[in-house]
Amino acid sequence: MIWHDLRDPNDPELDVLAERHNLHPLHIEDCHHRNQRAKVEEGAGYVFAVLKPVHVTDDGEVLITDLDLFLGHDYLITVQEGECPSVRAYLDQLHTAINHSRADQLFYKIADGVVDAYPPALDWFSEKIDQIEDAVLEEPSPLTLQSIFAAKRGLIALRLALGNMRDVASHLQRMETDLIQSDLLPFLRDVYDHLARHMDMVEMQRDLLTGAMDIYLSSVANRTNQVMKVLTVLGTIALPSIVLSGLYGMNTKGLPWLNSPHGSEIVIGLTVVSTVALLLLLKKFDWF
Amino acid sequence: MIWHDLRDPNDPELDVLAERHNLHPLHIEDCHHRNQRAKVEEGAGYVFAVLKPVHVTDDGEVLITDLDLFLGHDYLITVQEGECPSVRAYLDQLHTAINHSRADQLFYKIADGVVDAYPPALDWFSEKIDQIEDAVLEEPSPLTLQSIFAAKRGLIALRLALGNMRDVASHLQRMETDLIQSDLLPFLRDVYDHLARHMDMVEMQRDLLTGAMDIYLSSVANRTNQVMKVLTVLGTIALPSIVLSGLYGMNTKGLPWLNSPHGSEIVIGLTVVSTVALLLLLKKFDWF
Amino acid sequence: MIWHDLRDPNDPELDVLAERHNLHPLHIEDCHHRNQRAKVEEGAGYVFAVLKPVHVTDDGEVLITDLDLFLGHDYLITVQEGECPSVRAYLDQLHTAINHSRADQLFYKIADGVVDAYPPALDWFSEKIDQIEDAVLEEPSPLTLQSIFAAKRGLIALRLALGNMRDVASHLQRMETDLIQSDLLPFLRDVYDHLARHMDMVEMQRDLLTGAMDIYLSSVANRTNQVMKVLTVLGTIALPSIVLSGLYGMNTKGLPWLNSPHGSEIVIGLTVVSTVALLLLLKKFDWF
Amino acid sequence: MIWHDLRDPNDPELDVLAERHNLHPLHIEDCHHRNQRAKVEEGAGYVFAVLKPVHVTDDGEVLITDLDLFLGHDYLITVQEGECPSVRAYLDQLHTAINHSRADQLFYKIADGVVDAYPPALDWFSEKIDQIEDAVLEEPSPLTLQSIFAAKRGLIALRLALGNMRDVASHLQRMETDLIQSDLLPFLRDVYDHLARHMDMVEMQRDLLTGAMDIYLSSVANRTNQVMKVLTVLGTIALPSIVLSGLYGMNTKGLPWLNSPHGSEIVIGLTVVSTVALLLLLKKFDWF
Amino acid sequence: MIWHDLRDPNDPELDVLAERHNLHPLHIEDCHHRNQRAKVEEGAGYVFAVLKPVHVTDDGEVLITDLDLFLGHDYLITVQEGECPSVRAYLDQLHTAINHSRADQLFYKIADGVVDAYPPALDWFSEKIDQIEDAVLEEPSPLTLQSIFAAKRGLIALRLALGNMRDVASHLQRMETDLIQSDLLPFLRDVYDHLARHMDMVEMQRDLLTGAMDIYLSSVANRTNQVMKVLTVLGTIALPSIVLSGLYGMNTKGLPWLNSPHGSEIVIGLTVVSTVALLLLLKKFDWF
Repeated sequence: MIWHDLRDPNDPELDVLAERHNLHPLHIEDCHHRNQRAKVEEGAGYVFAVLKPVHVTDDGEVLITDLDLFLGHDYLITVQEGECPSVRAYLDQLHTAINHSRADQLFYKIADGVVDAYPPALDWFSEKIDQIEDAVLEEPSPLTLQSIFAAKRGLIALRLALGNMRDVASHLQRMETDLIQSDLLPFLRDVYDHLARHMDMVEMQRDLLTGAMDIYLSSVANRTNQVMKVLTVLGTIALPSIVLSGLYGMNTKGLPWLNSPHGSEIVIGLTVVSTVALLLLLKKFDWF
Repeated sequence: MIWHDLRDPNDPELDVLAERHNLHPLHIEDCHHRNQRAKVEEGAGYVFAVLKPVHVTDDGEVLITDLDLFLGHDYLITVQEGECPSVRAYLDQLHTAINHSRADQLFYKIADGVVDAYPPALDWFSEKIDQIEDAVLEEPSPLTLQSIFAAKRGLIALRLALGNMRDVASHLQRMETDLIQSDLLPFLRDVYDHLARHMDMVEMQRDLLTGAMDIYLSSVANRTNQVMKVLTVLGTIALPSIVLSGLYGMNTKGLPWLNSPHGSEIVIGLTVVSTVALLLLLKKFDWF
Repeated sequence: MIWHDLRDPNDPELDVLAERHNLHPLHIEDCHHRNQRAKVEEGAGYVFAVLKPVHVTDDGEVLITDLDLFLGHDYLITVQEGECPSVRAYLDQLHTAINHSRADQLFYKIADGVVDAYPPALDWFSEKIDQIEDAVLEEPSPLTLQSIFAAKRGLIALRLALGNMRDVASHLQRMETDLIQSDLLPFLRDVYDHLARHMDMVEMQRDLLTGAMDIYLSSVANRTNQVMKVLTVLGTIALPSIVLSGLYGMNTKGLPWLNSPHGSEIVIGLTVVSTVALLLLLKKFDWF
Repeated sequence: MIWHDLRDPNDPELDVLAERHNLHPLHIEDCHHRNQRAKVEEGAGYVFAVLKPVHVTDDGEVLITDLDLFLGHDYLITVQEGECPSVRAYLDQLHTAINHSRADQLFYKIADGVVDAYPPALDWFSEKIDQIEDAVLEEPSPLTLQSIFAAKRGLIALRLALGNMRDVASHLQRMETDLIQSDLLPFLRDVYDHLARHMDMVEMQRDLLTGAMDIYLSSVANRTNQVMKVLTVLGTIALPSIVLSGLYGMNTKGLPWLNSPHGSEIVIGLTVVSTVALLLLLKKFDWF
Repeated sequence: MIWHDLRDPNDPELDVLAERHNLHPLHIEDCHHRNQRAKVEEGAGYVFAVLKPVHVTDDGEVLITDLDLFLGHDYLITVQEGECPSVRAYLDQLHTAINHSRADQLFYKIADGVVDAYPPALDWFSEKIDQIEDAVLEEPSPLTLQSIFAAKRGLIALRLALGNMRDVASHLQRMETDLIQSDLLPFLRDVYDHLARHMDMVEMQRDLLTGAMDIYLSSVANRTNQVMKVLTVLGTIALPSIVLSGLYGMNTKGLPWLNSPHGSEIVIGLTVVSTVALLLLLKKFDWF
């Protein structure tokens, strides 16, 4: 069994192989265009699959690239599109580790490795969502909104890739081809199982993110409400003072206690009493 | 019939049993990894199932663990992953109670026990949601938001476990295997029925929680509106006083009633009249 | 044909009948536990069904109980769980009216009666939603929120019961049993039809209720906006008065018109002019 | 072929026809009850269908009524329930136009006419939604909310009718009956196609209406924000004036410039400078 | 093979061709009515398809028109409804490039060209959504709302067209007709694949747009909250000054420090101290 591990779809070897193994031009074209959907198709004497390796960079960006596979009876061609360090490392490791595998066994191992790269991405999102949840409750800010937006965008892309990968795994199990021997079926079912579990996880994370968005809005509304109450208390405290000191500041005649030596104390007392009464009134009618 | 009740997936007996009964390495691997999906699969001469026992701790946390089962013709292997006191107690009780059961009957009894542990968890959520509903209407606060968030998270996890368990129960009924005798079918249908009912309940609770979230937002908005009205009434009361007392506090000449002995009374009267008129005006045009 | 009309699942006659007709222990157990899902199952020589009668109390509460039926060749057993006056009345009326019905005909008539009790409940909700719609537009208040919450809760329960009942009716049509004769099929289809129509209605009502919730929020936001505008107008009116009368109330020297006999009139004039100008400015730039 | 065109389900002729053609009592009952679901059922030697004609009144109300059809080998019975001027006009026109049609051809023509009455209703909603979209952006008011509510209600009813009609058209194509000859199949598929297109349109309109609702809320929130900013600017302008003129209005001693002939000018200058500084400060930190 | 490329459905040649090739009147009618759903139907000896070309104008408007195709054994008829420059250009180019194609090969090439016109439209929306995302976070305004509304409307229309086109592609693969030879199947699957990928993209964009709408609302709420805080700080600063200077502006007697030469300084000191204390108090209790 020969494994052709092409690192670039523009490698001229691909065209040589295409001619030798009679690969369909549309499949070769798929190798040249990035951002295909994950899919599996039967060609003449081979199976063509597009998988979606995922990689989380050190600064938290999620990269989803394409890995094209042609599985024949005695050969496997892998074509890597775009840079994905984690799948590259895994492929390099397979080169050294595998000696007498069949082509379909190698095919499975590569698919398994691609699927195993998803949990780190999911963990990264889990952690991010935990941070967002704390932030929306404690200190909702436009930055939090941006984080929610970014996480949402990432999860949407991840879900798309996973959903299509799951369809691929499901299709592989049901495919009637002699290129994949039956002892591999439990392993393919296992791959399907993993993908389904990752998909469940992404759905959960999307639900949590939607919840975080709602709570952001509620949290901001609540804070505005708190601020309004403070403002209203300030207004309530100011009102009697404004009214009474305004009154006694007028240049008109006839106000009581104007000439009393305790006039100021009386008016201040009146002010304090009305303020307290007003505050109690608001409290009593539960206006704030 | 022998029941191997392993309390730890790392028990070396598992490897002995795996070799003796020819258990598939992927199934043994599933036993070693926590947080599997509930599932059922046919192996060579045995059925492998992962169930999800649930346990509510005294302080209201919902724990969902894994219980792996291997059902053979004359043996049953159960592997408990993680701590779940309620399923442990149930299994211990089965040891003393069951004597001459068949392996598939014991399998059913364990599955039934696992499913019967869900209603307490659902009841806990029902009570929690009742508290949340009261809180959002009476005193919406950030704490309520946190409760909603926590309940949502719990329900999402519970729904995931229940949904997969239901698929397992459905699969078990349709499985064409001689390991499960046909007299058990009504009982498996009963298990399916219970799971479907629990699932309905979780969906209802999710709907109610979403409603509670909406009502939180509406309730806060309504309270803000109330506070604004109070503030506006304060402003309305202050306005004439500010304008008129400001006027009569000026050091300019030519204002009427400045020298009248009843000047203050007249101005106060004017203030009161304008205040009342303003309040009535706002009321009339339904501005608040 | 004998009809055993048990009014209590704890009636010892149930156990006698269970033994005589060889009823499955799980079905008897279902009779003893309330809040089953509506379902239909084939037993040995009989059909077991759980229906969900509905009853609206005078003060508008919606009660959903269980009615269990065992349909044999020459007998029908009905077991009523919980109090449901409307189904009780209907059953009593059937006793007097039916003489020479077959067991399956009686079974149909009871199912038909149970389904016919749903429209009053739906009408009650329709009326309630009409009231809520008026309230959210005219006077949104926390009470309205409570009504929405209660209606939502009721509709969720109703939908659940109807959905399962519809599945039962669908199952009954497709059931291959000689216990139900083929002349009943159009009637069962009619029952299914009614349930589907009721289900459509509940879905419509849920949609309307969700809309009412949204409109509540919008309506409150709109009112807050109105109140804010009033407050801003008050502030706009107060501003020139505060500034100018504050100025002329200072004990400093050098202000114009301080000694003019028309000083007050001039300042008041200035105040009025600036106020009007300010209001026009706000209006022009469409700031409120 | 004879067409019995009954304009009232209480027409005694219906009972005569029911007996002559052996129509099922449940179908006759359906004719007497309004607000059936659109449906098609095979009776003994005939096909029974309920269609849902739609009519838009001059003042924009959408009426959805029932039209019952019994299609036999050599007869067609139509029973109109409720007033629907557009379908009445269409039926009258068919009377004059059709001479030698087969019963199933007439059946198709009536169904086609009923379906063709939907586009005017859809257009009415399109126009309404355009108006609502303009209103929510330019002048969101409680009246707009009422329009949204009314349109939503209408679309929900329309979707329900269309959805069931589509099921009917789909069922008619797959029905194995010799009452409908095969040359009609392309025409029935055409009816199905139209209904599917109308359904797409209703779904689009519902999406747009939901969007309009969201935008209403956002638009009101935005306006409130604008009003708040105006209020804050007013407060910012008032603050230095209140503080400084309050200070210089006190009867205490020791303030600078009290006896200066340019005192007022200095204080006014200070006030203006602090106001401008405050406004610039707010602007700089982007607080509004 | 002859290709009849009609640029107008009212071209009299269409009627000539309809008669010659025995095209079904309903299909001819479909050509005359714009805004059909994308669909494919088998006629007598031909396949009729409606495709939906898309075109983005220079000022960003998305036009979706109809392209009708009749595929016979030795002829292809295309009928263009409405103006779509991009599909027109593509068809003109095909005229010059294709010489000895079979009719079904030409059919595929046209379909492929129609599908290839979607990515530019999708890219246009991607860019638009990026702009909207920036706008909602940085400067949410009614204009942004209008953009969201317009993009939503466009995406709804695009999704509808794509969804129906995808159904067409799926149907074409499964169609049992000798008009399409089997060597075209991989190519039709490729068309289906592209449409599915475009559909995924539209769904992603719709999700992002919904998120942008939510973030608009949250962003406005957040800004309102900021403005409220500024207002409350202004109120807090004003309060002590209003109370104390109001007090010392009264004409009553008995206030302390009235005659002290440092009276003003003392009162100002008191004012500043209370203001700072008040601000610290608000800060401490996290009221804003």
